[in-house]
Amino acid sequence: MSLSVGFVGLGNMGAPMARNLVKAGFEVAVFDLVPALMASVEGARAAASAVDCARGVDVFVTMLPAGRHVEGLYLGDDGVLANARPGTLLVDCSTIDPGTARKVASAATERGFTMLDAPVSGGVGGAQAGTLTFIVGGTSAGLERARPLLSAMGRNIFHAGENGAGQIAKVCNNMLLAILMTGTAEALALGVRNGLDPAALSAVMQQSSGGNWALNVYNPWPGVMAEAPASRGYSGGFMVDLMLKDLGLALETAEQSGGSTPMGSLARNLYRLHQQNNAAGKLDFSSIQTFYRPELKD
Amino acid sequence: MSLSVGFVGLGNMGAPMARNLVKAGFEVAVFDLVPALMASVEGARAAASAVDCARGVDVFVTMLPAGRHVEGLYLGDDGVLANARPGTLLVDCSTIDPGTARKVASAATERGFTMLDAPVSGGVGGAQAGTLTFIVGGTSAGLERARPLLSAMGRNIFHAGENGAGQIAKVCNNMLLAILMTGTAEALALGVRNGLDPAALSAVMQQSSGGNWALNVYNPWPGVMAEAPASRGYSGGFMVDLMLKDLGLALETAEQSGGSTPMGSLARNLYRLHQQNNAAGKLDFSSIQTFYRPELKD
Amino acid sequence: MSLSVGFVGLGNMGAPMARNLVKAGFEVAVFDLVPALMASVEGARAAASAVDCARGVDVFVTMLPAGRHVEGLYLGDDGVLANARPGTLLVDCSTIDPGTARKVASAATERGFTMLDAPVSGGVGGAQAGTLTFIVGGTSAGLERARPLLSAMGRNIFHAGENGAGQIAKVCNNMLLAILMTGTAEALALGVRNGLDPAALSAVMQQSSGGNWALNVYNPWPGVMAEAPASRGYSGGFMVDLMLKDLGLALETAEQSGGSTPMGSLARNLYRLHQQNNAAGKLDFSSIQTFYRPELKD
Amino acid sequence: MSLSVGFVGLGNMGAPMARNLVKAGFEVAVFDLVPALMASVEGARAAASAVDCARGVDVFVTMLPAGRHVEGLYLGDDGVLANARPGTLLVDCSTIDPGTARKVASAATERGFTMLDAPVSGGVGGAQAGTLTFIVGGTSAGLERARPLLSAMGRNIFHAGENGAGQIAKVCNNMLLAILMTGTAEALALGVRNGLDPAALSAVMQQSSGGNWALNVYNPWPGVMAEAPASRGYSGGFMVDLMLKDLGLALETAEQSGGSTPMGSLARNLYRLHQQNNAAGKLDFSSIQTFYRPELKD
Repeated sequence: MSLSVGFVGLGNMGAPMARNLVKAGFEVAVFDLVPALMASVEGARAAASAVDCARGVDVFVTMLPAGRHVEGLYLGDDGVLANARPGTLLVDCSTIDPGTARKVASAATERGFTMLDAPVSGGVGGAQAGTLTFIVGGTSAGLERARPLLSAMGRNIFHAGENGAGQIAKVCNNMLLAILMTGTAEALALGVRNGLDPAALSAVMQQSSGGNWALNVYNPWPGVMAEAPASRGYSGGFMVDLMLKDLGLALETAEQSGGSTPMGSLARNLYRLHQQNNAAGKLDFSSIQTFYRPELKD
Repeated sequence: MSLSVGFVGLGNMGAPMARNLVKAGFEVAVFDLVPALMASVEGARAAASAVDCARGVDVFVTMLPAGRHVEGLYLGDDGVLANARPGTLLVDCSTIDPGTARKVASAATERGFTMLDAPVSGGVGGAQAGTLTFIVGGTSAGLERARPLLSAMGRNIFHAGENGAGQIAKVCNNMLLAILMTGTAEALALGVRNGLDPAALSAVMQQSSGGNWALNVYNPWPGVMAEAPASRGYSGGFMVDLMLKDLGLALETAEQSGGSTPMGSLARNLYRLHQQNNAAGKLDFSSIQTFYRPELKD
Repeated sequence: MSLSVGFVGLGNMGAPMARNLVKAGFEVAVFDLVPALMASVEGARAAASAVDCARGVDVFVTMLPAGRHVEGLYLGDDGVLANARPGTLLVDCSTIDPGTARKVASAATERGFTMLDAPVSGGVGGAQAGTLTFIVGGTSAGLERARPLLSAMGRNIFHAGENGAGQIAKVCNNMLLAILMTGTAEALALGVRNGLDPAALSAVMQQSSGGNWALNVYNPWPGVMAEAPASRGYSGGFMVDLMLKDLGLALETAEQSGGSTPMGSLARNLYRLHQQNNAAGKLDFSSIQTFYRPELKD
Repeated sequence: MSLSVGFVGLGNMGAPMARNLVKAGFEVAVFDLVPALMASVEGARAAASAVDCARGVDVFVTMLPAGRHVEGLYLGDDGVLANARPGTLLVDCSTIDPGTARKVASAATERGFTMLDAPVSGGVGGAQAGTLTFIVGGTSAGLERARPLLSAMGRNIFHAGENGAGQIAKVCNNMLLAILMTGTAEALALGVRNGLDPAALSAVMQQSSGGNWALNVYNPWPGVMAEAPASRGYSGGFMVDLMLKDLGLALETAEQSGGSTPMGSLARNLYRLHQQNNAAGKLDFSSIQTFYRPELKD
C-alpha cells in the first residue's frame, strides 16, 4: 500500500519533484497558488488550499521561497500544525534561514509531529532527473521514514544533525561553493593572463592540491567542458541571483552567531558587483569568470 | 648505460630527491654549500662547486630557494650556461617567480641548451617517498628526455606549457589552494558555531558542490582525519611561512600582468595576520582553522 | 514655562543625557527597569513604568539597546502609541535597524504623532559633556520642536531626511568610520614597519589626501596623541563590541537593499577576528592597530 | 645671485614644475628625450643630455616614471653620480619604490652628495599652480638647502624621515587615500540606495566621525561638489591607472617588509576590477563610485 503525500509549492523545482513522486507510485495531492502549475503535475490531485493539502496525508512536503512563507504556512490557528493529522511526517525542502527552520520544527515537535528540514542541491536539472542531493536536519528515525520519498526525488541523502542542521549545512556548503568558484575563476584568469592554456591549467590544478568540484564538473572557462554552462553562454545552471540569496542566508547566520566569514563575505560582494556591473543576475554563477576577464563576455 | 646527473641544492627537499635518483641507478654528482649535506646523499659524488657539478653530466638539476639564486648560478661568465657541456639537459625544480624562470630559460635556449622549469608539490614527505608532483614548463621533447629522472622522484608529471608555464601553473594552483583551505576552515567554523558536528559537515560538503582537496585529504579541523596535520597540533605538513612565500609569488605575478586577485589577496592577508597574531609561521597551513576558532589553539 | 519630558532607558548613555535635560531646566520623568538608575538622575521624577513615563508629557525620549525593545515599547495595545497624549513629540535616540525605525514611525504617524529617529554619536564622554551629535530622521517641523531638547544634550544636530534617515545615516557613517580606522591603522603599521616614525607619518597623512577623523582626533598608535585611547591601553572610548553591533546593522541594511559593501564587510570581519583572537571586545575600537602590529599589545 | 638648477623629465608634471622654477628666478637647464618638451619651458636652457644637464649646477632635480629610470640615470660610469660636480644637491621628485630610492641615495651619499627623495602629490593642477605637496626623505640640512626650490613649486613641504622615507610616506598616504575614497563611495551608495540624499549624507558624515579628505574636497557623487571630477564625468583629476601604479608600490612595499594590508589589497583589487569591467583607466579615481552604482555611468 503506497504512502499518500501532500506537496505544496510547484515552482521550477517543486513541480518536477512532485512529478517524480507520482512516477514512483506515491498517491500525491498538490497545491500552488497558480492553478496551471497544479495541472502540470499529471496524476496528482489538486487540493483546495495549502492546508487542505496537508489533511489526511502520511507525509507533507513543502518547497517554498523563503522563511516567512514556511512560517506562515505551518504556524497559527489556520496553519498546518493546527490542522494536519497527528503522526503526519512533515518535510520542508525549502532553503530558508536556520532560525526559522528551528522555530517551526520546535513548534511541530511540541504538537507531537516529526519534522525534517531537507533543503536540496542539484538545481532544476537534478529535480527533473531525480538526482537531487538532500541535506537533512532532524532525527534519524524521521529521516528513515522519509527515505523512500527522498529516494524517489534524489540520489544522495545526507544527515547533517538535529532540526535546522540541514539548513545550516546547506548554507555552509553553498558559501564554500561560492568561494571555490570565485577562487577557481581567479586562478584560471591569472594563468591565462600569463600565457597558459585554460584547459591545461585546469587539468593540472584538478589533479593537484587545487582540486575542487568546479574543476571536476563545472569549469567556468568557456570551452574547457562542453557540457558546462560556461560553454553555452553561461545560460542554465544556478543563477547568480540564487547564489546571492544563499550567500545572504550564510552571512546572516554568521552574523547572528558571532562568526567571521571574510572569504564568504568577499565572494558575496564580488557576486553583487558582478551582478550589477554586468547585468548578470540571470546568468549561471560560473559567469563570475567574466568579471575577472571582461572580454569573455563578448 | 645509466645517465649521469648533477644535482645542486640539498635542503629538506633536494637531499631526498637526490637520494631517490641514486636509488634508481643514476650516476649522481651533488653540490651544496654545506658539506654535511653532500655526505648525506650516500652513493653520490661530491662536486667541488655548483658549476663543477654541472660539468660533464647528461642532466643538471637544481633545487634552490629563490629566483636570485637560480639566476646567479646559471647566468654570467662563471655560470652553468657558460661551462656546461653542449647538450646537457637543464632542469630547475625550484619554485621561483615566472619572470626569472623565463629569463634563464631564454638565455639557455640562446646557447643551445634545452631547459625545463619543473617546480614540485607534495612536500618533504613526497620528496622522501618519491611521490612528488612535477609541473613542467618547456618543450614536450625536453619533458620526454627528463621523464625517467622525474619518474624516479615523483608520481605525477604535468606539462603546463612553454618555459615558465610550470612556475605559473604552480603559483596559480597554490593560490587556489590557499583559497580552498581558508574557505573550508571558514565553512567548518560557521557550521560548528551553529551546532554541527565537524565530521558530519565535512562529509556532507565533501560529497556536495563544496568538495575540494582539503576535505578529501587534509581536513583542517582537529580529529576529523587522524592522519592530517590538524590532528597532531598542526605540526609537519606545509608551513604557513612557505604558503606566504608562494602567495607572494602569485600576487607579484598578478601585479605584473595587470590581473586582479581579490580572493587570493585576502587569503594572503589572512595568513599574514594569522602568522603574526598567533606566532603560526612554523605551523602547518591548515592551522588557519584556529584563526577562525581561537579556542582550537589550546 | 518649561517643557515636560519623559525619558526611558538610563544606561551609560541615557542617564547622563537625562541629567543634562534636568540641568537645562526641563521637567523630567524617567524610567528604567533598574531602580537605582532612576535614583541616579537627581531632580527627575521616577515613573512607575515606561508607558507611564510617556503619559502627560510634551516630549517622550527613548534610549534603548535594540530594535525589538523600541518596537515592544511603542507598539501594541499596552504601548506608548496607544497611551500617550495626542500631540506628544516622540524622539527615539536608540541606534537600531532602519526597518524597525520606519515601521514604528509609520505607526506613530498613523495615530497622529510626530516622531523622530535621532541616534547619537560621541560616546559616553559626549553624553556627559552634553556634546553629542544627533543625526535626525523625520520632518523639519518635528526637528525644530525637538531642537531645544537636543541642544541641551548635544552640540551638533544634523537633519538626514525622512523617518529612518537618521538611522541610515548613522550606520553609513559608522561603517565609513570602521573603514577609516582600519585603513589608518594599516597605513601606520606599513610605514612604521618600513622605518617611519608614527607621529611624523601621521602628520604627513593628516595634512595630505589621507586626512581623516582618526588622524585628526583619535590616532590609533600609542603615544602619538596623549589624550587618545591608544595612549591609555585602548581603554575607554568606543568598544570593539559596539562597533561590531553597528557594523552588523550596516551590513544588514546593505543586504536588504541589494547593496555591495566589500570594504565595510572586510572591516567587520577584521574586527571580529581581532575581537576573537585578541580577546579585544571591551577595548576601544582603535585597538585594531594591535591586530596589524601584535607587539603593541605588550 | 640665483641658484642654478638642472631639471630632467618634462612630462605633464615636470614641465610646469620647471616653468615655476624659471618664473621664481632660478637659472634653469632642462632635458627630456622629447625636444618639443624642452622648448615648452621658456627661459630655460636645453641641455644636450640628462647627464649634461647635471653638470655644473647647484641643484639637480629629476621627475621620472619609475625606479628603473632613476637608477639608470644616477648610477653607472655614465651616470649623474659619476659626472656631477661635488656638492651638487640631488632631488628626485619621482614616485618610485622605496628600495630603489634608498639604493640610489646610498650610492650618492658614498660619493659625498646630499640627496633627497621628494615625491609630490597634488596632480597636474597643483604642478601648474605651484601648490604641490612635497613629502621629503633625507637629512634636515638637505631639506633646508632644497626649501627655496620646493617652495617655488609647492605649498606644503613635509619631512618624513631619512632617505626613502618620502617614498614610503607617499605610498602609505596613497594607499590610505584609496581606502578612504572607496569607503566613502561605498557609504554614499549605501545611503542613497536606502533613500538618503547624497549631499545631505555627505554633510552629516563630513562633520562626524566619517569625515575625511574625499568628503572635504573631492566628493565622488556627481553634483555634490560642482568643482570635483565627479561633476564633470570623472574627467581630469587623478587617473585610475595612476592610482593602480601607486597601490602596486604600496603592496610591493608591504610584501617585502612582511606587512599585512587587507584593506589596501582589497581597494587595489576593486580598482583593478573597475578599470577592466568599466574601461575606467583614464577616468578620475573617484569614478569608483560608479562601480558601486553602475547607473551613474550613464
